[in-house]
Formats: sequence, C-alpha cells, structure tokens
Amino acid sequence: MDSILIVGAGAWGTALAVLCERRGHAVTLWSRSLTEEINHTRTNARHLPGVNVPQPIVVTSNLRANPDIGFVIWATPSTALEEISRQLAESGTVAPDAICVSAVKGIELTSGLRMSEVLGRNFPNHAQAVLSGPNHAIEIARKIPSATVVGSDQPEVAGTVQALLASPEFRVYTSPDVAGIEIGGALKNIFALGAGIGDGLGLGDNAKAALVTRALAELVRLGIQLGGRRETFYGLSGVGDLMVTCFSRHSRNRRAGELLAEGKRLAEVTEILGTMPEGIPTTRSVYRLAQKLGLNAPITTQVYRVLEEQAEASEALRRLLERELRPEADE
Amino acid sequence: MDSILIVGAGAWGTALAVLCERRGHAVTLWSRSLTEEINHTRTNARHLPGVNVPQPIVVTSNLRANPDIGFVIWATPSTALEEISRQLAESGTVAPDAICVSAVKGIELTSGLRMSEVLGRNFPNHAQAVLSGPNHAIEIARKIPSATVVGSDQPEVAGTVQALLASPEFRVYTSPDVAGIEIGGALKNIFALGAGIGDGLGLGDNAKAALVTRALAELVRLGIQLGGRRETFYGLSGVGDLMVTCFSRHSRNRRAGELLAEGKRLAEVTEILGTMPEGIPTTRSVYRLAQKLGLNAPITTQVYRVLEEQAEASEALRRLLERELRPEADE
Repeated sequence: MDSILIVGAGAWGTALAVLCERRGHAVTLWSRSLTEEINHTRTNARHLPGVNVPQPIVVTSNLRANPDIGFVIWATPSTALEEISRQLAESGTVAPDAICVSAVKGIELTSGLRMSEVLGRNFPNHAQAVLSGPNHAIEIARKIPSATVVGSDQPEVAGTVQALLASPEFRVYTSPDVAGIEIGGALKNIFALGAGIGDGLGLGDNAKAALVTRALAELVRLGIQLGGRRETFYGLSGVGDLMVTCFSRHSRNRRAGELLAEGKRLAEVTEILGTMPEGIPTTRSVYRLAQKLGLNAPITTQVYRVLEEQAEASEALRRLLERELRPEADE
Repeated sequence: MDSILIVGAGAWGTALAVLCERRGHAVTLWSRSLTEEINHTRTNARHLPGVNVPQPIVVTSNLRANPDIGFVIWATPSTALEEISRQLAESGTVAPDAICVSAVKGIELTSGLRMSEVLGRNFPNHAQAVLSGPNHAIEIARKIPSATVVGSDQPEVAGTVQALLASPEFRVYTSPDVAGIEIGGALKNIFALGAGIGDGLGLGDNAKAALVTRALAELVRLGIQLGGRRETFYGLSGVGDLMVTCFSRHSRNRRAGELLAEGKRLAEVTEILGTMPEGIPTTRSVYRLAQKLGLNAPITTQVYRVLEEQAEASEALRRLLERELRPEADE
C-alpha cells in the first residue's frame, strides 16, 4: 500500500483516485473548488457523475507537507499545471523522494513545452513519469477493462509506477518515450475536435475514417518532429488513444467539435460541457508551435481557424477533404 | 464515357454500378442469381436495400463477348472469383485490351494467393488494378463523400482507373503497392470480426481501442511479411479501412462478430446477414497461411478458434486482452 496524492479533481483525476483506492492505496485527492461538494456527496457530479468516491479517499484543498506521500499524480487542466505545481513546490507538500506522474494532456502555450517539462521547472529534482492511453475516465472508474502506457526516462521509475497502478482490469505498459506519449495524448484532442466537427456536419463513416487516417499521419509527422518515436504513435498512447477519442461517445473533445459544427461559440461549448476540453488550448499551442517551427499541420490549422478565426466549420472541413487527386504516397 | 462490366451484384458490386452510372459510363452489371429481381424492381433488396439501380444499368446473367467493354470491375465473393473469372475468360467476354480491376477482398484458401493473383491466372495478359479503401457500399451508393485507393504495378493503369472513377464525392488516390492494398482490404475483415466479438461481449471503448491498436500492429506485421509496404498499412486502405470496418454500424463483418459473441453458429450468422461476410473465409485462409509460413497472428488465431473450433468467444477475447505486463515496445 502506497500513499498517493492526486492533484486535480476533474474526470480523470477523480477516476484515478477511485482506481488507486480500489488498488488498495491511501489516496488524497486535491481539488481547488470541489472539495466541499465531493466530501458532502461522495460524488463528483460535475465531472464524473454517477461514480461513488469512496470514503477512504481524503478530498482536500489544503496543501501541507506530507512525508508519507510517495507518488504525486498530476491531473489538472493543462493551463493550470504551471501555477498549481508551483504552489505545491513552494508549499513543500511533496517530499523529495516522491515520484511525479503527469496525467495532464497538453502543450504550454507560451513555451511550447510538454507537461512533464512544465512540471520539471517546479520539481527539477524529482523522479518523473507520464501516463497516457485510450482511457476514458468513466470506464476506468466503472472498472471496465482498459490499458494504458507509463513512460519514463528511467526504466525503474516506469516499472515502479506500473506496479503501483496495474490490476487485472487496468493493464499498464511501460515505455521510455516520454515525449511521444505526451505528444500523442495532447495532439489527439485536436483531431477529436476535427472528427467531432465532421460528425456535427453529418460526415459519413467512410469520410470520417479518411479524416482520422489523415489525422494519424499528421500526428506521426508532427510527433516525430517534436521529438517522439514513430512506434509510440502507432501504439496504445498514439493511434489507440486517437481512435477512442475520435470515435467514442464519451469523448468531450469530439463532442465539443460537434457543438462547434452546430454553430455554437467557444464560450457556449465550454458552458454546455461544464469544462474546457483540452483540445481547445492544445490547438492554440500546437498551431503556434507549428508556425514557429515551420511544420505542416493542415488539420490543426483548420481546427484553429474554426476555434480562433470564426471560420465556418463546413468550409474548414471542405478544405481538409477536398484535395487534388494524387498518388497516396505523396500525402 | 467508358463501357464498364461489373461482375457480381453484392452490396459492393451494386454500389460500384450506381457510382459508375452516375459518373456517366455505360454500365453492365453481371449477376448469377439476382438479374431478374434487379431488372424487375430496379433495386437490390437483398444486398443494398433502399438504393435505386438506375435504368441505364444493364443487369444480366449472360456472358457474351463485348468488344466495347474497356474495364471489368470484379466484385464477386472471394470464394467465387476463381470460378467466375475462369468462365468469363473461357467465354471470351473480356476483350484483350480491357483493364481488370479487382474490388474483391480476400485470400484464396488453397493457394494463399491475393485476388489479383487469382485473376491473373485466368487473365494473364490483361492490365490489372486493385481498388480498396474505407468504402461502405451504402454510403458510396448514397453519394456520401468517400475516398479510395487504386493500385497497379503500372502507374498509367492506376491513373486510367483513377480518371474513370473519380468525382468530387468519390476521391481516388493511386498507389503502386498492389499487394499492400489487397492485404489491407482482406485482413481488416478478420479484425472486424474480432472487434465485433468485443462489441458483442460488452467491451468498453477503451478496451476496443486497445484491441484495434493491436489489430493494426498485426496487420502491419503480417502485411509486410506477405509483401505489402508499411506506409500502405498506415494509409486509407490500411488503418483507414480497418477503422471504418471495426467501428461503423454498416460493417457486416463487425456485426457477424457480435452475433458470434451472442452464441450464434456460423450458419445462423450467414442466414441473418443474408450473405457470408468475407472475414469468415479470409480468417481460414490467413490462419492457414500464417501456420504455413510460421507467422505470429494472435488475433487471427483467436478469431479462427471461435469460427472453426467452437472456442467460447469470451475465452478467446480474454486470451487477447490478458497478457503479462511488459514494455510496450516488446509488443
């Protein structure tokens, strides 16, 4: 039994808390704003409705030094990670030998850095791992079998986190490709917005498959240019996560794209979903990064145009689907 | 305007006939058993209900020499191609300068050959192309935008077929990788059976994505060993077709897997679907080929066990999903 601090009580943080508690660990779930509600109702109605948050999970908004905590799993919104991790670093909450596991999906807007790099700024001496894969929170919370990938530069750290989390219904693979895992987890949300736009515009299954195929090509191309390994993008945390995010009814990013296609503005989408889907800030960050580095990112560009330049969704989709005929290998 | 003979009035042959007629070509649709019904009702209620087969399409079961025919598109069941193509070759129906386009998805059981190789036995001197991609027939027939890939050893043949079929709502890419295109089109039906078994057993979206990710890895590995190119398997006729076949409500192979998971026997499945889904003979052929060549094909093997050895679907799926924890790169 280990002592785990989970930072952030969104859908994913809450599901990870439930998973870890079920696994027999002592779990503290830190939330800025939902502590009272979760403690009172033992559910997180806003982000993970219908799931019981068992009593042994301590839900708190206090940050206090706790030398027992062996693992900190970060599950904040990507845009909040810098600030919250700085606060935790300054408060001395995290013991020097605790392992930091980032489950955050995104790219920092101003710096273009991955989430583990953002964490590394505030916790430069802590052992680190990242966690990503085709993992809709609600299925994990409901104990529906799933698999994920834990990445670390240090194989023994990846193995330790694997042993911490693995169970028959939550299989954990390890990988040394931290960059690839994080890039896959971040970029797939952009493509889910694009797939959702297609769904909202009544794209057929054939064309949607063509669009997601092109998204995979964009993920692999950009991902390698940003430092990930090709094989990672063809694995669970790449194409696996891309598929589940683009095709599942559970995906909020896909749903956000649908709402955008119906003509909703960004503020309305966020209000309807009760949260800002990660694909929205990630599209901004990756668009900016691609511009800066001169990378070809046609889907990211069209999603960006819909989000930030009030482009018509139908016109953006048409630009993606209508290309001149040419040998497929040129793609 | 070209003159096209389409051989086989299943869902795909009928949709291709509708597509070609819409494109302005003179179309003859050959069917062994449905000629009367289609001529009488102008629909193919058995295989493509709700779609009008326009008058200009000549539906016939006669095979007669016709020097005007410039293209023969083959769309028979894979298990019938050898016999029907031999009959057409012997009858002299196909002029020597006609281009043969195989739209058949399968692998010959006895020989392990691809469909274009089967055709080549009976038409050794005809120019050849193959056609495959994420193309549910019903969407093509309904003019819902789709994309496909035409492959040929001869670039000018691929270009000619591209020009023959392409329209704003049916985009046609070309490729020199005939083997890769055919293998992708054939093997994806095995994995759709597997995905359907998962659906039938109530697998969640996370686990289904993990299963299809593993299917993609099996497709690429087997496909390269059987002579296809890696990049083809990551394109429209590989992962694109795999996704649409594993996730679409239109997929008969996926649906067949669902029925098998519910405990239906093969004969019942075929009766319910009104046709033998191609994944069933293809699983036999590929299992046999993998055994002969000593190839590792875990999903194909488990689907084969369900189809041919009366293995419990749940036990076969468990074998696929339960593997010991290990670094993902070992997969």
